[in-house]
Amino acid sequence: MARIKASRNGTKKDAIITKAAALFRKKGFAATSMRELAETVGVEAPSLYNHIGSKSEILQVICFKIANEFNTHMIQVESSTDTALAKLEKLIRFHINMIIEEYDEVFVANHEWKQMEEPFLSNFLTQRKNYEGSMITIISAGIKKKELKKLHPYVAVLTILSAVRGLESWQRHKNNVTAIQLENDMVEHLLNGLKT
Amino acid sequence: MARIKASRNGTKKDAIITKAAALFRKKGFAATSMRELAETVGVEAPSLYNHIGSKSEILQVICFKIANEFNTHMIQVESSTDTALAKLEKLIRFHINMIIEEYDEVFVANHEWKQMEEPFLSNFLTQRKNYEGSMITIISAGIKKKELKKLHPYVAVLTILSAVRGLESWQRHKNNVTAIQLENDMVEHLLNGLKT
Repeated sequence: MARIKASRNGTKKDAIITKAAALFRKKGFAATSMRELAETVGVEAPSLYNHIGSKSEILQVICFKIANEFNTHMIQVESSTDTALAKLEKLIRFHINMIIEEYDEVFVANHEWKQMEEPFLSNFLTQRKNYEGSMITIISAGIKKKELKKLHPYVAVLTILSAVRGLESWQRHKNNVTAIQLENDMVEHLLNGLKT
Repeated sequence: MARIKASRNGTKKDAIITKAAALFRKKGFAATSMRELAETVGVEAPSLYNHIGSKSEILQVICFKIANEFNTHMIQVESSTDTALAKLEKLIRFHINMIIEEYDEVFVANHEWKQMEEPFLSNFLTQRKNYEGSMITIISAGIKKKELKKLHPYVAVLTILSAVRGLESWQRHKNNVTAIQLENDMVEHLLNGLKT
């Protein structure tokens, strides 16, 4: 029987997670079977279970890994002495880079998190709300300092987070736009729109 | 057997389409059965077929009705003598109003169009591309006249269309933001970001 090849800098479990994320993005979590995942990894289904407990566990690992990356970055940004605009720029660029570099995982965390079981589902949802809350706090502080236009902070967060999610569409049809041009132009559009 | 009640200004078919759009949005097209639709409408399944040929036909009607509304509006905007900024403002406000007033249908057209059969699928996709193409033309003209910042027009269209789709999230959690504030603040953010 074939052995599971570890990913370059990771464990065999990491390799399974990477393949699973690609399958979940293309077919959806519900429509992907463990047997199919085993075929993609190149092993018999039972040997998958030496590394991972269940399909649900894989989804949890993907969603919480992505949450960790966004949370860690947010803590760095919040604790910096940057202006509100500079903080927002860092956040927007981070979102864009994440969706470019970890497309499968970010897509799955964005679209399939509702399929998680409790207590992970509620916990993940709370983390998303806290993340949005941190962005709202940054924007509110910028408005107070008259650094940003007086728009409703929630609407600004909705506009920014929805716009960066649009990169999923760019991932499918590049339309001759490079990643760097996309990043710079979207950042300019979204930040310029908030400047006083 | 109960008779199908016509919607206020429409036919019985319109009433079925409205109920179907709500079900497709909540449960997804694939997971909704004609029997369930009949129950929601309040009739036996066979009498649905007096008004509509199939579940696929309902999806086609929803998607092409929404396409007609967006296309008709685009033609009006394109043929006007407005500036590029004024044209974009009309388009953004129209998108926001559509997603507020015809939420179920717009959501289904955005998320479930891929479930359509040919020739409707390819046709619908072409219409979407043409619509984006019209927006790109408007933005390119605005950049040429130095009315708009020199950003890649495709990136600006992606930013705008993704941001307005974010209203789906507002529809679920209003967060004490009124429709009018949402509309005005999102328009200001997105247009201000493009101004020279």
